[in-house]
This record gives sequence, C-alpha cells and structure tokens, in this order.
Amino acid sequence: MLSILAQGLLAASVVAVNNGLARTPQMGWNNWNSLGCDVSEALLLDTSRKLVDFGLRDVGYNYVLLDDCWQDGRGDDGYIRVDEQKFPHGLKWVAGQLHDQGLLYGMYSSSGEFTCARYEGSLDHEEEDAKSFASWDVDYLKYDNCYHRGRFGYPEVSFNRYNVMAKALKATKRDILFSLCTWGEDYVHTWGMSIANSWRVSGDIYDHFNRPDALCSCTDAKDPFCVAPGTHCSVMNIINRVAPYVDKGAPGGWNDLDMLEVGIGGMSDAEYVAHFSMWAAIKSPLLIGADLRTLSPEALSILNNPAVIAVSQDPLGKSAALVSRNLTVPKDQYGEGETQIWSGPLYPNDQLVIFLNAANEDLEIITSLDEIFVRHGPGGSAPHTKEKWDLYDLWAKRMDTSVAKKVINSPPGTLNGVKGWYNSTETPYKAGLEAGDERLLGTKVGVAAPGEIKVKVPRHSLKMYRMRSQK
Amino acid sequence: MLSILAQGLLAASVVAVNNGLARTPQMGWNNWNSLGCDVSEALLLDTSRKLVDFGLRDVGYNYVLLDDCWQDGRGDDGYIRVDEQKFPHGLKWVAGQLHDQGLLYGMYSSSGEFTCARYEGSLDHEEEDAKSFASWDVDYLKYDNCYHRGRFGYPEVSFNRYNVMAKALKATKRDILFSLCTWGEDYVHTWGMSIANSWRVSGDIYDHFNRPDALCSCTDAKDPFCVAPGTHCSVMNIINRVAPYVDKGAPGGWNDLDMLEVGIGGMSDAEYVAHFSMWAAIKSPLLIGADLRTLSPEALSILNNPAVIAVSQDPLGKSAALVSRNLTVPKDQYGEGETQIWSGPLYPNDQLVIFLNAANEDLEIITSLDEIFVRHGPGGSAPHTKEKWDLYDLWAKRMDTSVAKKVINSPPGTLNGVKGWYNSTETPYKAGLEAGDERLLGTKVGVAAPGEIKVKVPRHSLKMYRMRSQK
Amino acid sequence: MLSILAQGLLAASVVAVNNGLARTPQMGWNNWNSLGCDVSEALLLDTSRKLVDFGLRDVGYNYVLLDDCWQDGRGDDGYIRVDEQKFPHGLKWVAGQLHDQGLLYGMYSSSGEFTCARYEGSLDHEEEDAKSFASWDVDYLKYDNCYHRGRFGYPEVSFNRYNVMAKALKATKRDILFSLCTWGEDYVHTWGMSIANSWRVSGDIYDHFNRPDALCSCTDAKDPFCVAPGTHCSVMNIINRVAPYVDKGAPGGWNDLDMLEVGIGGMSDAEYVAHFSMWAAIKSPLLIGADLRTLSPEALSILNNPAVIAVSQDPLGKSAALVSRNLTVPKDQYGEGETQIWSGPLYPNDQLVIFLNAANEDLEIITSLDEIFVRHGPGGSAPHTKEKWDLYDLWAKRMDTSVAKKVINSPPGTLNGVKGWYNSTETPYKAGLEAGDERLLGTKVGVAAPGEIKVKVPRHSLKMYRMRSQK
Amino acid sequence: MLSILAQGLLAASVVAVNNGLARTPQMGWNNWNSLGCDVSEALLLDTSRKLVDFGLRDVGYNYVLLDDCWQDGRGDDGYIRVDEQKFPHGLKWVAGQLHDQGLLYGMYSSSGEFTCARYEGSLDHEEEDAKSFASWDVDYLKYDNCYHRGRFGYPEVSFNRYNVMAKALKATKRDILFSLCTWGEDYVHTWGMSIANSWRVSGDIYDHFNRPDALCSCTDAKDPFCVAPGTHCSVMNIINRVAPYVDKGAPGGWNDLDMLEVGIGGMSDAEYVAHFSMWAAIKSPLLIGADLRTLSPEALSILNNPAVIAVSQDPLGKSAALVSRNLTVPKDQYGEGETQIWSGPLYPNDQLVIFLNAANEDLEIITSLDEIFVRHGPGGSAPHTKEKWDLYDLWAKRMDTSVAKKVINSPPGTLNGVKGWYNSTETPYKAGLEAGDERLLGTKVGVAAPGEIKVKVPRHSLKMYRMRSQK
Repeated sequence: MLSILAQGLLAASVVAVNNGLARTPQMGWNNWNSLGCDVSEALLLDTSRKLVDFGLRDVGYNYVLLDDCWQDGRGDDGYIRVDEQKFPHGLKWVAGQLHDQGLLYGMYSSSGEFTCARYEGSLDHEEEDAKSFASWDVDYLKYDNCYHRGRFGYPEVSFNRYNVMAKALKATKRDILFSLCTWGEDYVHTWGMSIANSWRVSGDIYDHFNRPDALCSCTDAKDPFCVAPGTHCSVMNIINRVAPYVDKGAPGGWNDLDMLEVGIGGMSDAEYVAHFSMWAAIKSPLLIGADLRTLSPEALSILNNPAVIAVSQDPLGKSAALVSRNLTVPKDQYGEGETQIWSGPLYPNDQLVIFLNAANEDLEIITSLDEIFVRHGPGGSAPHTKEKWDLYDLWAKRMDTSVAKKVINSPPGTLNGVKGWYNSTETPYKAGLEAGDERLLGTKVGVAAPGEIKVKVPRHSLKMYRMRSQK
Repeated sequence: MLSILAQGLLAASVVAVNNGLARTPQMGWNNWNSLGCDVSEALLLDTSRKLVDFGLRDVGYNYVLLDDCWQDGRGDDGYIRVDEQKFPHGLKWVAGQLHDQGLLYGMYSSSGEFTCARYEGSLDHEEEDAKSFASWDVDYLKYDNCYHRGRFGYPEVSFNRYNVMAKALKATKRDILFSLCTWGEDYVHTWGMSIANSWRVSGDIYDHFNRPDALCSCTDAKDPFCVAPGTHCSVMNIINRVAPYVDKGAPGGWNDLDMLEVGIGGMSDAEYVAHFSMWAAIKSPLLIGADLRTLSPEALSILNNPAVIAVSQDPLGKSAALVSRNLTVPKDQYGEGETQIWSGPLYPNDQLVIFLNAANEDLEIITSLDEIFVRHGPGGSAPHTKEKWDLYDLWAKRMDTSVAKKVINSPPGTLNGVKGWYNSTETPYKAGLEAGDERLLGTKVGVAAPGEIKVKVPRHSLKMYRMRSQK
Repeated sequence: MLSILAQGLLAASVVAVNNGLARTPQMGWNNWNSLGCDVSEALLLDTSRKLVDFGLRDVGYNYVLLDDCWQDGRGDDGYIRVDEQKFPHGLKWVAGQLHDQGLLYGMYSSSGEFTCARYEGSLDHEEEDAKSFASWDVDYLKYDNCYHRGRFGYPEVSFNRYNVMAKALKATKRDILFSLCTWGEDYVHTWGMSIANSWRVSGDIYDHFNRPDALCSCTDAKDPFCVAPGTHCSVMNIINRVAPYVDKGAPGGWNDLDMLEVGIGGMSDAEYVAHFSMWAAIKSPLLIGADLRTLSPEALSILNNPAVIAVSQDPLGKSAALVSRNLTVPKDQYGEGETQIWSGPLYPNDQLVIFLNAANEDLEIITSLDEIFVRHGPGGSAPHTKEKWDLYDLWAKRMDTSVAKKVINSPPGTLNGVKGWYNSTETPYKAGLEAGDERLLGTKVGVAAPGEIKVKVPRHSLKMYRMRSQK
Repeated sequence: MLSILAQGLLAASVVAVNNGLARTPQMGWNNWNSLGCDVSEALLLDTSRKLVDFGLRDVGYNYVLLDDCWQDGRGDDGYIRVDEQKFPHGLKWVAGQLHDQGLLYGMYSSSGEFTCARYEGSLDHEEEDAKSFASWDVDYLKYDNCYHRGRFGYPEVSFNRYNVMAKALKATKRDILFSLCTWGEDYVHTWGMSIANSWRVSGDIYDHFNRPDALCSCTDAKDPFCVAPGTHCSVMNIINRVAPYVDKGAPGGWNDLDMLEVGIGGMSDAEYVAHFSMWAAIKSPLLIGADLRTLSPEALSILNNPAVIAVSQDPLGKSAALVSRNLTVPKDQYGEGETQIWSGPLYPNDQLVIFLNAANEDLEIITSLDEIFVRHGPGGSAPHTKEKWDLYDLWAKRMDTSVAKKVINSPPGTLNGVKGWYNSTETPYKAGLEAGDERLLGTKVGVAAPGEIKVKVPRHSLKMYRMRSQK
C-alpha cells in the first residue's frame, strides 16, 4: 500500500507545465562542467557520436546541451546572433545532425541582460529569442539567472520574469523542455512546476564531495534569502539543500541538483558513485558533465548503470527522502562529516533505501523497517514494517572496467550491445521493471526484517538497495 | 481580575471577519489524515451517522469536511466539476443528508492552479467556485496553498490572493466558515482574522509526537521565511511554532494547529491525550482525523471528554500561553526533549495550567503561582499569586474503555446518552460552566498555594488542571 | 572635540519630519501600562492634576496621552465616534482642561481596520480621523499597527500605509506630534524620521527586568522579520533590540523604547532606576505608565530626577551607545545575565557613561577611557583618552523618600517647589546646564583617568555618571 | 591554464554599465574618513597638490572626491545649491583646478531626501542634480543610501531608485563614474554592475582592525536583511562580509569595501598593511581616507607600494578568494581571532596568495598548492598543483621611512621620481608587468612546491606573495 500522499499524486493526471515533457527526469550531456566556454560545432558532433557509440543514448542520455558562450551579440533587428567562428553551419544544422542520431538538442540563455559569462542575455528579448530557438529546432532551454537587473527577491517577481520566457516558448508551438537555472532562489520549488520542467535548487556544483567553499555560502537548507548561492557547491551541500523539499519533484517538473561531475577528476570513484546514486534517487535531471572524448572507463561504468538509472526513471516519479541524519560522526579537515539514510517508494511496490556515509571513517550504519517506512506511517504503524524484504544491491552488476575500456576504445559501431547493455528506447524502464529485467533489479544480497538493520559503509560512499517484499 | 489585555479584548464587540461564525473554535471531522484521496458519498454518510451515534455531534463535532480529490476538472463554462463516480447524487444532496442530521457540511479547495493533490484549484476562478459551494449548501471552506504561481512571499500578496475568495464567499450571501490552510506563511497570524475564521500555522501534521522530519524543515518559530513548512510535522513541532503568537486567536478567528491524529495509530494513548489537550488549550479547531468506521474505544474516550472540550469552547476564547520551557532534560534518539508549562484564563475566573512532559523520562515538573499568573503581572505582582487554588484534573472523568467499546459497538441509536454524555446543543458549554456541571469541571485532586508546586508527569504525557480560587 | 559624525549632525539644521516638535524626546503620561482599557474623562483630569501637583509637569512631563478604547465605532458620515459613557463632555473639552493647566493632549489610533483592543481603527479613514483629532485640539497621536490587512512585510508598504496618516495630519495645519507604534517592523528606524517624531523599536514592554517570555519571541536584534515582536518584552530585551541603531534618533525623531513601567510593581527599585536611566540615555520618549493616583514615593523620586532627565533632554540629542557587553557572567533561572557599558556625548563637552549590571550577582565592571571614547577614535586614538575626567553620579541627589511621600500626600498646590525642584519651563535644561545647575549635574564622586576604571555595581542595577574634563 | 570561469569572463567583451570607466578599481582620495563635514575649496586644492607632490597621482590615485556637507539646500528652481562659504569660487572652478593637475573630480550625494549628514539629498531630484554635476565637470559620483523614505527592502525597489540617477547621469552625456554607497543592502552585488561602477558591500568602515561594535551589527555574511549595516565596521568585518561574492567584481564594476583608514591612527602599521593589501587583493576601489596634509611617512610607504597596487590594477580584474579559514586560534578580548588564506589569479599566469593572521598570537599558517589552486580544480586535480612556484614578497620593496619622510617634507616638485617611483600614467601596470618591472614583482623569497607550505605570520598582519611558475 502506498502512502496517502502517493495515492493523491498518482490519482491525479493533471500536470502543471503541460508540455508533456520530462515525465521522468531528463537525461543528457552538457558541456559546461568540463569545458566552459570552449564550445564549437565539432564538440557537439563529436560528443553526439560518443553518446551513441558508448551506449549512453541507449540507456537514456538523449539530450545534447550547448551551454553559454555561443552568442555574438544582438542584431539591430532585435534577434540574437550566433558566433559563426564556433558554429559555421549554424545551429539549425547542428540540431539536424543530432536529430538524425536519435538525439535531442538543447541550448542555454539567461533571464538577464547578460548571461553568466557576460554574453548577450534574453531579458526583455524573450519573444525574439524563443522564436530563434524554435526556428533552430531546439528541444530544450536551460535558462540562467545572472544580471537580472534587480528583478528578484520575492517569488512573484522571479515567477513573472521567468514566465515571460515560458509563455514565449509556448507561443512557438514547439515542445521545448524548459529548465530554470534559478539556484533555488525565491522559493522556486513552490512555483517552478507551474511554468517549467525543472528548476535548480542550489548554487553551481563543483567537483568535490563535501568541501565547503567561501563562494558557496548558503549551507542552511531553510534559508531562502542567503546572499550568494554560489559557484563552488559540493555534492553534500546540494543534497542537504534540497532535502526539505524533495517531495516537490513530480512527473513533468523536477528539482535539479545541477549537472554531474562524474569523471571530471576531483572525486574518488566511490564519491562519484555516491554522487550519481543520490542524483538518481532524488530524481534530479541526469546530465553528464564530463568531456566524453576523454571519458575514463570507470566513469562510463557509473554513468551507464541501468539499475540506478531505473531508479531515476522510475514510473512513480517520487523522490527518496531523508529519513535520518547523524551528525555525531568523525569529521574531516573541513569540519564536515555525517551519515544519512534515504528511502522512497519504487515501482511497482518496491522501496529504495540508501546508506550514505559522508563521515571521515568507515562506519556501520543502523536503521530499521520502522525508519525506512516512516513516511508510510510513523512509529512503526505502517504495515510494511511487519514484512520481510529482499535487498537488491543496485551497484552489484556495475560494468567491469575492462569491458568499459573496450567500449570506449573500440571503433564506432563495433560494440553496440556489448554484454547486452540496456536499451531504453526499445524497452522503456517501466516495461523492463514489469518484465523483471535483472539488469534493472541488481543483485540480491540479503534480507531486511523487523529489528535492527546494520550495513557497513566505507568512508565517502554509499550502499543502495532496492527492497522487494517477500510476500 | 483579568489581565489588562483580556479586559480590552472582552470590552470590544467588534470581530474582524464579521460572518458571525467560529465564535469558539470549530469542531468536526475531516477525511484527509486517515483516508487522503479515498473519498466518496458513502464515506461522508457513514461518518455522519457515526458522529451522531457515538455522541460526538452532541459534544460539539458538527462539521463534516470533505477534503481534496472530489474534483473532475473544470467545464468550458468555467465551473468546476464534481467526480460523479465518487459522488453520484452530487454534493448538494450530500449537504442535505448532513443537514438533516443536525450537521454542517464543509469542502476543500486551493488558492492555486491545482490543489495539493494536483486536482483542479480555484485560483483565478474564485467567483465561480464560491457560487458552486453556496449552491451546494456548503457551510465551510478549507482553502489550501499549493501551486500558487509565485503569488506569495510577503503578506500583502498572500492577503490579496486569499481575499479574492473571502470576497467571493461573502458575495454569495451564504455564511460559509472560511479556513485558511496557509501553513503559517506570510505572517498569516497578523491578517488571517481580517478575512477568515481560522488559519493554519505550520506544515501538515503527521502522526508522531515529536520526531523531527526532513520534510518539516521549519523548526524555528521566529522565522517567517523558512523554506518548506512541510508535510511531516510532529505535535511538538506545531506547538512550538505557534507559541509566539497564541494570543492572535480570538472569537471569530483562530490559530489552526491542523487536524487531529488521535486514534490513527502512530502515537501512544498518553501522547494522543497530550495532543488533544494542547489543541484544546491553544484554541485550535478540533477536527477529528481518524476513520470513525474503525475508531478505537481509547480514541473515542479522548475525543469525547467534555471537560477538555469545555476548555476549547471556553467563552473567554483566550489561548493558554507558554509560561516556561525547560530544555535541559533527557533527550531521545532524535535529540528531542523538553518540558513546558502552559497557563491561561478560563471562564469565569478560573485558570488553566498544563504540565507537559516531552522529555525522554518521567519527571517532576516544578512551578509556582508567580509563574502561572505571570501574564497577570510579572514578578509575583498579580494578586492571584496570594490566593489558594483548587486543582481539578480534567482527565479524571475520562470515559471507561469498556463504556467506549459499548458505545462503538451498539446498534445505532440505542446508546445515546450513555453515562449521561454531555449534549452541548441542549446546554452550551458556557451554560454548563455557569451551572457547575461536574462533567466540565473534572475532579478536584489538590490545591495550589504560594510556594513551589510540583507535579509528577510521565514521559510523553501531560497533566491538565482547571484552577478555581478558594475565595 | 566631537566625533566626525556628531559634527555632521550638528552642522545640519534640516530635520526630516519638519513639524518642529520633539526637538528633545517627548515626556508625559499614558494610561495603557497600568490601566489598559479602563479610561475615562475623570482619569485624565485626575492625572493632569497629579502631574502638576507632584512637580512632574515642571520637570518636563507635559503630554497627557489617552490610549486605546475611547472609540464607539464609526458613523455613517465616515467619522469616528467617541464613547460618551467614558467622555461625557467630549474630547475637545478634555483637551481644553489640559491646555488650561499648561499640559498637552494626546490620543491613540491604529493603522488598521481595528485597534489592538479591537476598537475602530483608522486604516482607510485617515483623513476623517486626522480632521477629528485636529478639531478636538489634539497635540499628539500614538499610531498603532494592529489589523493592517496584510499591508506590511517590507519597508515601502509600511511607509506608504503610515504616510497616509502623516499627510492627513499635516493637512490639518495643526502641529500634532506623530508617534509610530510599529514594534520595530519593516526597518522603521530607517524611515520613521521622514514622517514621524518617534517610532517603536520592539514589542510591548511588560513589567519585568529581563525575563524572556514566549510572547516576546524576537530577541535577535539583527532580525527584522522575526514573527512576533510581542507583548511581554522585558527592559533588557528592548535595550538589546535597539542597540544596533541607537544612532538613528536625532532631534525631531526618536527611537521609542515604549512607555515606562516605573512604579507599577513588577520590578525592584534598583531595576526601575536602571530602566528609567537607560530610557533617558538612549533618548527614548519618557512616558510615565503608572497610575499617578496610587504612585509610590519611590517611583516619584525616580521619575522626577532632573539630573537624569537632563540626559534625556540634552541639547545634543545624541543617544549613548553600547561600547561593551560581557555575556560570561552569572546567569539567572531564565539563563539570562550580562553586563553592559554605555557611553555617549553630553552637552556641552561632557560624556555619559553607564555601568549596567544585568548579571545574577553583584559584580565589579571594568572599563577604560579608550573604551568609553571608542567612537571618538578607536584604539585609544581619541585625544579624550589622554585627559582626566571628573565623575558625577547622576543618582546621588535623588529625592528622599520622606520628601517624596510629603509631595504625594500634601494637598494640591501646597508643596510646589519643595526642595527646589527643577522647573524646566522656567529654565530649559540647556540653560540649566549652561548655568551649571547642581540639580542637573549630580554629585562628584571620583575621577576617571587613563588606565583601568573599575566600578562595583549590585545585581540588576546600574551606575550612571556624567564625565567632565578637568581641562 | 585559467579556470573555466575565468575563461568565460575574459572571452566576453561586454560590460554591464557601459560607460567605459573603472576597467580597474578606481583609486583616489576622499575627505570623509578623516575630516567628515569639515570641507572647503582649500582642502581639495591642498590635497590635490599633495597627491601630485607625494607621487600618489603617479602610482594611480587620480580621483579627488568631495564627500557630504557641500550643499546649501535647494533653490526654488529645483536645483541644489553649493555652500558658498566653503566653496567661494564654485565647484566648476574646483574641477578645473584638479583637471589642470591631471586629476579627476568626484562628488557625493544620497538617494534620499537628505544625505547621511542631513543635508539636501537627490531623491526625486535626480535629473536636476545630474545636470548640475555634469555642468560642474564632475567625473565621479558617490551616491549614498540615507533617508530613502522606505524605498528599499527588496532588490527591485532599490534597483529602481538607484537607476533613476544612473539614467540621469547617462543623459548628461558626460562620463561620470557611478559609485553606489548601498552598504550591501538588497543584494546589490547581483545588480550593481548593471547600473554602476562600484557598490558598497558593508556598513561604514572605522579605524580598527577587528573590534566588533554594536553599531555594526551585521556580522553574518549570508544575511541580506540584517537590521543595521552600521557605521563602525572593522577591517575584518568587511572582509568577511564580502567573502561569499568576491567573484562579482569584474572590469567595469567592483565590490567596494569602503575608503581606506591607512594613516588615520587607530591601527598599527602591520594592521594598515594588511588592510591595504586585502583591499587590493579583493579589487576594492582604493580611496585614501587620511588627511594628506598630516600624512605620516609610514602611511605614505603603504599607500605608494606599486607591487601591491599592481595587484589592485591587475589586467585580469579577478578578486582573490578565500580558500581557507581557521577559527580555532587564540582569541582576543573581543572574542575575535582567525586566520585566512586568500588566493587568486594574476596577470599573465601568476597567482596571488595571502596568509592573513587575525588571531591574537604570532602563528605558523599552513597550506598547500592543492588549496591555493582549489578553484582551478578541487582535490588536487588542477595541473598547477604539480608545478613549482617562485614566491615574490610584495612588501619587500616597501619605501624606507626615511625616504618617505623626505618625500613628505621636501618642497613641492623637488623630489618627483625619488628612488624611481612608479609612474602608471607613463607605464600602465599591464605594460609594467609585461616588461617585468621589479617594482611591481616584489622580491623573490622562496619556492612553493607540492607538499605542505608553512609561513610564519605575526599577530594582526599578513604575508602577500606573487607566485610565478618555474616552468
């Protein structure tokens, strides 16, 4: 039995921003985290081919997103210009190349006079720019928040500013996924879903697991008015920011925890596994940030794990939630350290549970069915707490590094389907789950029964299980 | 002698929202806490009969409230449609059935484009929906806060949004109790009374006494801008949220601590007693949340205690206030633990005092007349501190479980008036108090005199006394 | 040499609200603190005679202020009605009686639909009510903040709301001192002076020195959005609220710390002395709150101390400021305890220094000239720190209780001028200071020289000195 | 290789407020900190000659700024009047005198009805006043925030208020550097650059290194709504306020840390060195606050250090950022104490590193290349962390006191170019850096290599190094 709230959400078929997109969190690739302004036609085309060849398109990464720095000012006609050095064939041509490969094409602008890199922004030119995007066959718009000329500070003024672009996009009649890059400002989690398919909840991510940085000053999840959401926010900072409102994500509109750092190089393999798993569990968009031209086998084998992606793309569309947090654990040199337990429902009647160790030592983390199912009924009042549950480790079937290396190094097209990778275009995740596809279920490693449940988790890593009732 | 402030309030006869309703906090039943979206005509009718048969109507629970999920979109004519599967005879017919039993009928909508369960909301359709409610003979509207399209963030914008419905209801000429479900946002305690009969002060309650939950992030009573009031707020969280402005409730407009969890199953009997007592003392609406079709005798004997309900329905209409709080007590696994003493005036010249033990151990709680009467004059300057007071235990006459079981299990109509339950329709609480009805006064158990007053209170429970001067 | 800032302020002759009033903080009497809604013509007339007979008018208390509860609704003509039971001769007649005694007459309303005691308010009736006040020869308006229909939450909306009355008063052409009762909300200390002569900085005072109360929840001086400024704020709470912006008061517009509790009964004599001294030092209005018909001799001898009133009415009009605060001192049962040192310039070249002991024990408080003159130049860089200063105790010449008793008990008119009390109408404080009047200077008790300065101060009391350079 | 973000910023040539000014932080002199309202024609002319004679103009201090108190009300024609006592020849004549010496002329007003010293303000007279300034050949406007009549509280209202003057200045067609004195209110760091060349980030500085003062209450860098930014803010307070958004400064628009206290007398020489160095590193405007007529040789030798000024005027225009902060160090009598490490890129491929000891003892501060280059890639992922770097002490070539004394005491014109002081008019800093001018590089004192880097730093001082790769 699902919780009351879950029933309510499922019973209703209305969605807020009714463009029909992002029924599960969007997946794809964006150049910013690894390449910044170093963008070009060649980059996008090279990347698109890697997405196909590495099987990443098949597991679900179908958006190729061009971030900032493609602009060349605005013409006298009011229309924004594309940098012809970087994109000699124009962007419509790029879109066509991507579409031909079964991929979708996304772009970037800012709801400001400038973009964050100080290129031409769309503020007060929303209609012209939406027309341009549509005319270039764009499928996705990431819309940033820099240089807004003071038009923020309370929800209505930000809503109105972003809504101008939402309406301009809708007026084009083209279905364009609308992604707000609002850094969690002005309570966007309460209104983003009315006009957009996702909304950022924090300052920009950077490639570290938990180091606090002076330029990511907002660490109190409850404070909506913190001065500077910032640009150097760690994985743990972002997780803790979104914890109070993970329930705001739902089919059609998602909390966006920012693009992935997996494979870029600042974290350990286990930290990247944790980062990727949490993004999937919280139903964030999954946008690869690494440069695919130099992707490591280890990174590939994180990004292409269908058992974890199936959590992200779960038909229920319900985020896991933080059910317990322990701050009395060994701290690191930054004074940081904690463990967390996350839990949430999975399709059809499964339950996700995550044991996250962000402490500075290997630890045994303890929980119980009462805690795991607290949102189905507190104090052990949920019937789920009386059952026995099989535990499936969702990382047990991770691709071998040797195989991943082969995938990366083989000539294009020669290794499609190696080891039978999951093809979600052929078999959507819902169908795969219904068919009991083992690639999605992971490996059974134990049983959770009433009483204490203990799991050993190494420092800066997590354990992630799908629970299935033995009934 | 009453305090200065009390005199002021009593002297004036003006009320803010002048619909004449809710002169004492409203009482009734609402389906959400136990049944969520699982609503139907049968549920409301079955429940109405239980209210009558169990004597709950007689002690004051006269509103039957249908919460979310009754909608079926909006017609081209702009009018909202009722789900005909769930309500085959329509809602006006339901209202008639309830009215015939001496009950009143309430409904739910949201000041948003959608309701919280993502059904059709009333935002920008307030006039049509108010007309519908009036045409269906509705007596009460619970009006929620989801999907407001950014129209919140400071008091004026929320006031204006809610005032549209307030005016639409008034325009129908039907007296409809207006209940704001604003989660304490935008300082609603400072303006709710101008347009409504009650206003929610916190995120949604859940069925636990004091467990903090990540989805109820707002724990600092003083912070109006906390990010997510949430959906899993414990009894103690809510009590602590409202403590700074309990004085804002007054006849005609009340702080709403959310619907009762009594009998749903996540708390102990003593915790439910504490929960119910505090709601009565703070003058919250008393809305049963349990499914009456499966109500336990223990729960019934909490809900039907006339001595505590008489506190809720006291003619003075003044909330008790928190006079002392001790945080240096044993904590539980959540790090929670405290004791509190609450006190406030009762009609005609009595005083309520509550010893609440939310610590993790049985404790002796100590106070004095100086503290109990601090708001009549601090530092022992109130004349009340020189008198002796009889203490009446308001839970001493709680119905026996065996009797409650009989009430629940007997055929309809056969047990009305068992053990002489209180009938507030025949004898309003004010009249009962004036007549010295023992069912309202509880049982005298001791005397409070100048000097230390000590009361033993078990873990997670309270002692609740009516004090009467010996003069 | 005065500080840079002082020079700037003195050099300019412009004042913000240019009605010419409150060039020094207003002084007078208000009924609320002791009598609440129990108002009448007789009360005002009896009080006015006491003000004269006790010499209080002569030391400066010249406003007689009628607070809430005089209203009797609003007529169909839009004009507010006076309660004829309480004021059978009407209010213009009352004003005349007061004016005949050399006193001024003040009234109360609220910038809300109701007053705080739920009588008729002036919101959206400002012009009619200002006309009424002027037609009744009113000299002062205390203007409250209850029931504002959501029109607050950021400075502009509160400013605009209050400015309507400011303009209405100005339009009457009568000089009416305008006193905002805004509880420190919406940064009134940054804009109050543009439209008014004083503005409240906290919730309502109550008669206790330092007890925290749940109904006065705003204890962090830096937080402008705290939920409920409240109604039970202690002397220490208010002092700490205003400390960050004491410099906002200046001739014509003052921070208002609320009416005095001196003599009402909840504090010790030493606590009342401290309360009164701090109000004078911070340049708050000095409004007696006690019932003069039952005033104690001890209270009289606090209220009539011309040496302290001369600090309040100092020609420089500059508040003392908090120069050091020590929280590591013995705490009381509320967990409260601190010592503070306040300092500020006095006319002509003197310096005020206060040693305030709000700790739970008698203590020796230590300071230095470097600290006392830190705002004339930090780090000992002010030339003042090289001089020697005579210390004059401003409480040394406090009237004997026996004399005060005689003043209170003697027939009207028979004891005017006892012991030569100070008459500020004949000799304004500035003239008295220039003449070296010993009643204003206090008694020389020591010398402050470079090096450590130590003063013993009993628990919950203060030492208050005027420093005069030996040069 | 620069960081991603740096690339983005450099790649774009658009600037926000496109008046072409302040491409590096402005430098000059302002009278307020030492002289307040004591302004006159003679002061400005005397000062201008000192700027030239002391070589300060040559190192870059080219703005002479007249602060508050020059006004004499407003005429019936709506135009502001100049105090003819203080400026008998008028201000256009003053401007001419300054221009003749190769200096620029700046003035002051406030976006309020009054200035902070209560002279005539420009609010609602922006067009007239901008015309006056342009007609007087003014080159710079410092625009304050006092007495704004409640027009603040969220970004849009402040932006709109200041934008009126921005547009009025632009309408004059004269290039006038626009400097917002907004005390960090209303998130000015997010919108200041759209209309102005600099914006204040804190309350007014005072002449102390780290003493907290009750009148500078805003110490939490993250809180945008703190009640009173204040007027007695220490150097450390200001540094900590700006740390979360130092990245908001860029060519054309800068975070303004307020005018310099160097040489005024409240701090030690080492503290002034630290103060000046941090202002340069964070790219604040450098405005001398001391009275040049009595300037000490020590102060001169701080202000004229070209190696530090070259950091301020660095062509990259990127602030250093706080990379680590240690609060567990010995505290002083105010409870203050910390150490900080700051780092940031310098032209062409150098790196600035600062070891700031604000603890109460001499300490050894430890860092590593991983930390210094954390923003080029966290976790040691930046290639810079594998190189060896020469360390150049930027204070090693500080002018001898004996030489500075000679400069100050010699007759005008006789000592220009003593010891070859740097002339940035002849050789801009960029050219000097490209030419490898030793006066800009400091003195090589060591090497930083992978592994621990330890530096001894005396109490209340700093070490400041330019790092150059050995590659």
